[in-house]
Amino acid sequence: MATEKIKAFAPATLSNICVGFDVMGLAIEEPGDEVLASRHASPGAHILSTNHEKIPFDPKLNTASVAVQAMLEKYGDPALGIGLDIIKKMPVGTGMGSSAASAAAALVAANALLGDPFRKIELLEFAVIGEKAADGATHADNVAPSLLGGLMIIRSLSPVDVVQLPIPGELYIGLLFPHITILTKEARGILRPEVPMKQFIQQTANMGAFVSALYREDWELMGRSLVDLVIEPQRAKLIPFLDEVKKAAYQAGALTCSISGAGPAIFSFAKGKSNITRVAQAVEEVMNGLNIPYDFHISRINQKGSVVMEGK
Amino acid sequence: MATEKIKAFAPATLSNICVGFDVMGLAIEEPGDEVLASRHASPGAHILSTNHEKIPFDPKLNTASVAVQAMLEKYGDPALGIGLDIIKKMPVGTGMGSSAASAAAALVAANALLGDPFRKIELLEFAVIGEKAADGATHADNVAPSLLGGLMIIRSLSPVDVVQLPIPGELYIGLLFPHITILTKEARGILRPEVPMKQFIQQTANMGAFVSALYREDWELMGRSLVDLVIEPQRAKLIPFLDEVKKAAYQAGALTCSISGAGPAIFSFAKGKSNITRVAQAVEEVMNGLNIPYDFHISRINQKGSVVMEGK
Repeated sequence: MATEKIKAFAPATLSNICVGFDVMGLAIEEPGDEVLASRHASPGAHILSTNHEKIPFDPKLNTASVAVQAMLEKYGDPALGIGLDIIKKMPVGTGMGSSAASAAAALVAANALLGDPFRKIELLEFAVIGEKAADGATHADNVAPSLLGGLMIIRSLSPVDVVQLPIPGELYIGLLFPHITILTKEARGILRPEVPMKQFIQQTANMGAFVSALYREDWELMGRSLVDLVIEPQRAKLIPFLDEVKKAAYQAGALTCSISGAGPAIFSFAKGKSNITRVAQAVEEVMNGLNIPYDFHISRINQKGSVVMEGK
Repeated sequence: MATEKIKAFAPATLSNICVGFDVMGLAIEEPGDEVLASRHASPGAHILSTNHEKIPFDPKLNTASVAVQAMLEKYGDPALGIGLDIIKKMPVGTGMGSSAASAAAALVAANALLGDPFRKIELLEFAVIGEKAADGATHADNVAPSLLGGLMIIRSLSPVDVVQLPIPGELYIGLLFPHITILTKEARGILRPEVPMKQFIQQTANMGAFVSALYREDWELMGRSLVDLVIEPQRAKLIPFLDEVKKAAYQAGALTCSISGAGPAIFSFAKGKSNITRVAQAVEEVMNGLNIPYDFHISRINQKGSVVMEGK
């Protein structure tokens, strides 16, 4: 008799979004990760398999098993064991929330296996514990949108306070993933521990203006306010071709173009499919000229987040 | 034959509003300042009279004349002279935008005297020049709402980019003006030039959440997000009774209670008139107990800003 396995999908996510460092993120349609959850004879969360060499097997170091372990502890049955098969369908260490997607998919699959004792929003606290295992910092700008879908501000984690923002129907995202590697810990370590007052003031104004622009569908204001004065300038040196890509994207009609998360993924926003297609062409031309391998995804915002795919 | 004089009113304003240091402000209904503008034989802007001993007569030091002088320079008639009579109806150095109100009223009166060559939004750049004369810093979180009315984010001054925010119908403001003096320059000098990353992150999230709460009329989110982690803690020592007032206001049902501008004015938000009345009673009880003279105003947001009152 085959053990029941439940498979869940969790989407990749963009975070920071220029003005929401550590607190704003959004889910895209694809790529994403899949995780299978099954009962396991030994108590606790276990990694049964992965398809990616960089994924740690040690359950204490893997975001998915750390998250599921936290869930099991809250569930309160110390004898319970859950095994996880992690099927990565997105690259690791890219600024697209790879570790968060694995944790989100693992939680949704494991929760379904137990008969959904937790609501999705309740899974967030476990996902955050998983993220902490990945880069040592407590933030949810990838796990929250990967789990819940949408474009959101994570105002607080304890207690959980997630603000879903309105999504203009014509908002398209272009996502460049250049095949170079940046470690989140390194990208985080590069940041100065303080923000100059002037930058703080301007970035706060831009955050307020961006949220207002979303509600009003004011595309020009969206463009004017989606400028990262604080984080991107400090991380730009990790991506030597960033300026060139940004310039090409803006010239082709992007509303914004910036590093996603810790990079090297670079996202653009545009109004409408024809605009984002032009942005894609312009960015691809730059990358082809530089001879750096890459992928480019055009996507809308994924409003479902993590979902159970099938039982098998 | 009497010289034509045009009188304008400009409202007091609250600024910072917990999460919008230097970039967010709102206009209240009263108090406010009045300024009379008239033609003057000598070129440039002149202070003819004031009713307040602290108002400088030197036109280079007075926000109203500096602002009108800037307007005249843009207007481009070097022979033109304008005299200003400043009728202060609000206290000076209070965090209620006193100098800004005088500048806004002077601009609206002088502009009307010239036949309204400038639109109101165009007056903003002159008002900002006036503010700079007052405290050396270029910001418009008082002059912009005093001039234009409403609750707004001033995203940029050059070029001018003002974002008017929606105003929930039941939003009431309680404004305590304790009769103690704080100079803006001193309150500004107290601030550290950098903001710790963690505070920057939280305050950005709170700004985004607050704007979202306004659009959704989500009163609880408004309350949760209107917390000043950065500026108020640094200025709190200038107002020894701040904690006591805040505690009383929150217990009486305030959504928020914080220093307005550089203080010592302290504002509260509440939903509905009965709630703000309870807040007023609680705060007045504290002030009476402390034996500190004060005024308390209950107001809604003034959506008109500065207006011409009458010609005489």
